[in-house]
Amino acid sequence: MKILDWNTLTDLEQAQALRRPALAQGGREAQVADIIAKVRQGGDAALIELTRTLDKAERDTLQLTQAEIDAASERVSDELKAAIDLAMANIETFHRAQLPTPIVQETSPGVHCELHFQPIEKVGLYVPGGTAPLVSTVMMLAIPARLAGCERVVLCSPPPINDAIIYTAGRCGVDAIYTLGGAQAVAAMAYGSETITKVDKIFGPGNTWVTEAKRQVSGDVDGAAIDMPAGPSEVLVIADADADADFVAADLLSQAEHGTDSQVILVTPCTALADKVNVALDQQLAQLSRAEIARQALLESRTFICSDLAQAVQISNTYAPEHLIVQTADSRALLPRLKNAGSIFLGAWTPESVGDYASGTNHTLPTYGYSRTYSSLGLADYQRRFTVQELTPAGLRAIGPAVELLAATETLDAHKNAVSLRLAKLEKQTVEKQA
Amino acid sequence: MKILDWNTLTDLEQAQALRRPALAQGGREAQVADIIAKVRQGGDAALIELTRTLDKAERDTLQLTQAEIDAASERVSDELKAAIDLAMANIETFHRAQLPTPIVQETSPGVHCELHFQPIEKVGLYVPGGTAPLVSTVMMLAIPARLAGCERVVLCSPPPINDAIIYTAGRCGVDAIYTLGGAQAVAAMAYGSETITKVDKIFGPGNTWVTEAKRQVSGDVDGAAIDMPAGPSEVLVIADADADADFVAADLLSQAEHGTDSQVILVTPCTALADKVNVALDQQLAQLSRAEIARQALLESRTFICSDLAQAVQISNTYAPEHLIVQTADSRALLPRLKNAGSIFLGAWTPESVGDYASGTNHTLPTYGYSRTYSSLGLADYQRRFTVQELTPAGLRAIGPAVELLAATETLDAHKNAVSLRLAKLEKQTVEKQA
Repeated sequence: MKILDWNTLTDLEQAQALRRPALAQGGREAQVADIIAKVRQGGDAALIELTRTLDKAERDTLQLTQAEIDAASERVSDELKAAIDLAMANIETFHRAQLPTPIVQETSPGVHCELHFQPIEKVGLYVPGGTAPLVSTVMMLAIPARLAGCERVVLCSPPPINDAIIYTAGRCGVDAIYTLGGAQAVAAMAYGSETITKVDKIFGPGNTWVTEAKRQVSGDVDGAAIDMPAGPSEVLVIADADADADFVAADLLSQAEHGTDSQVILVTPCTALADKVNVALDQQLAQLSRAEIARQALLESRTFICSDLAQAVQISNTYAPEHLIVQTADSRALLPRLKNAGSIFLGAWTPESVGDYASGTNHTLPTYGYSRTYSSLGLADYQRRFTVQELTPAGLRAIGPAVELLAATETLDAHKNAVSLRLAKLEKQTVEKQA
Repeated sequence: MKILDWNTLTDLEQAQALRRPALAQGGREAQVADIIAKVRQGGDAALIELTRTLDKAERDTLQLTQAEIDAASERVSDELKAAIDLAMANIETFHRAQLPTPIVQETSPGVHCELHFQPIEKVGLYVPGGTAPLVSTVMMLAIPARLAGCERVVLCSPPPINDAIIYTAGRCGVDAIYTLGGAQAVAAMAYGSETITKVDKIFGPGNTWVTEAKRQVSGDVDGAAIDMPAGPSEVLVIADADADADFVAADLLSQAEHGTDSQVILVTPCTALADKVNVALDQQLAQLSRAEIARQALLESRTFICSDLAQAVQISNTYAPEHLIVQTADSRALLPRLKNAGSIFLGAWTPESVGDYASGTNHTLPTYGYSRTYSSLGLADYQRRFTVQELTPAGLRAIGPAVELLAATETLDAHKNAVSLRLAKLEKQTVEKQA
């Protein structure tokens, strides 16, 4: 990786060095809009036809039968099933801890305000296809949906769906699995068809077709909401002289192997470590099956030499990484100052891969600087918050006059009148009682 | 209001009766994009020029001085100040109760997972101008920002800014008040200028210019996030024979007076009540300063006669109203079945106006059916959630093999290697200790 001395860079050079490459939009807008229109008009028949032409897969039906799910599950090894169970247990434990408690607060005597939580009724999960079966994505998307209490949880993945994905979806309580990929899958979940349930919100990663389709359906009030904006995966590692260069290199590579557009940044006050990491990268790269992808990603990656850990924290806060790994003598000491990261991994024994699979945290995280404003995926994304209020007559008497004056100030007579009528009635009742 | 018997409508007629009118987009896309481009290029000079041409206001500076704030505050009556103080206290109490506690969970022995919360650093609030000074909007947007711990809170409102808005912004701890309105205000907050702070997220209502500008800047990664999609305000009232027709009519009108596009729906099993409400509407309308607006809104409004309260609940859940008022003999009994509402008002003594101003709940709510997936504005919207994990050597030993297998299944060698290297080192340490 290219090594840059942060403090020799001008402000502009620093900003450019932290700038992410422009997102490949792929000019898919019109093509995706066309697919969505076809799905809305043609329903199941259009979906089957699109799957035939785009995925080169012949299927008469879209939904997997229970027999297909059972058969696929039998083909999954017991060893893999045990690993899935272990990961599921941790993910469940951490997401169950996020179940909210309603807030009940008397703000003034007789003025009762409440904050309640409800599951989003129907959710759709998208799991990309390709050579690698993304078992972890199924767990990360489906487990919080079930815990949140969503009534219907459906999953789309392009054909042929890997056995492990089918098994995991079944284990996580997904209600229906559809063999559908790409923009047509997103369109089907957003608008529904004879077979596919229309959902309220769509979760999950995908290629540029999927991302563009999610963008389009989320902009349509008749479509569906989405989890968060998408971007390439990225990691920033803060390490000091105390860090193990092999571990740092392995963590950087586990990000770089995701895709040629993955972003990998090392920030360290220790030049010797930076050099050792570069040596370790070369050694480890040679062993990887996805070495070519990782090598390409590393071309765009950078090591910054900073003056101290305080400056490393500043650089990380400015970059706002999806994953932030801290391998320093006392990594937890930095935590209070760390901002704008999707998920933080503390210490030598916490590689990013544990969070990707099995520690319990969710691996669906805001990328591309969105961690400044967006949250890591959690139970809250599968629920909605709403407020409730109930006033007693005494409560209305106490705050009513203030409401009347504020409404009058905003020249909203009817708002005022809704209070005045009630206060007059209460007054009349009091007078009648006294008489 | 037109009275329809729900059970005589076909499914299609029911769906059409609950369908909201299409949103007026106003074809502003290109005009707004042009304003945004001007602001990004021209900075303060462009903002001053746009304010001169669009708002017909001559100002050399954009930010109010402390002297201007003090002078405006002195002109606000003590009575109004007291009403603002009362409302502020309740809003603060309810939003303070929403301050989250970090979650710390050991998912497996030695595997520590945490969920933390941080304020979004810089937020921008938009308060519309016009004849009515929206004092309540200032409180609803600024109080949670301060409680959440946002470092910088700025506010834009078109000139001339009403004294009461200036006073309230000062009271709520807003750091800077800018005399800027429309798309140019949104652009200024999203991208910054010499005077205006670039913010991370923009909150607040506005006309079609503001709404379109918020849509555009939120779609740009260099822009700013926004609170929620916008739509016309709306209320649905569920009432039974027990309800006071005058109260119901007043509540319907307090929605109808917002704008000609406001949506107002009454659902009741009691035909007699529906008739009485129509009589009361006529009587009350005559007294309103905004009678013409309300009358227009009522033209598009409907009363549905349903068979019972269970069906009323179903209709409301399908419509997903922004505001839901329940005036029935036992309104709280319906609460567990009520879904998809932004804020719920229970009982005869809880008009919508108390929530608009002073009960303590936030009046910024998802409209246009978005309450199916979006939440009522709360403290959570001013913060971001992120996860932290830290494993002990024992923790890594416990879950490491499962991570290795899952990574191998997903053909992500480097992910696996990041664990394998560490497990090997732990193994070596153990052997060395034993030796």
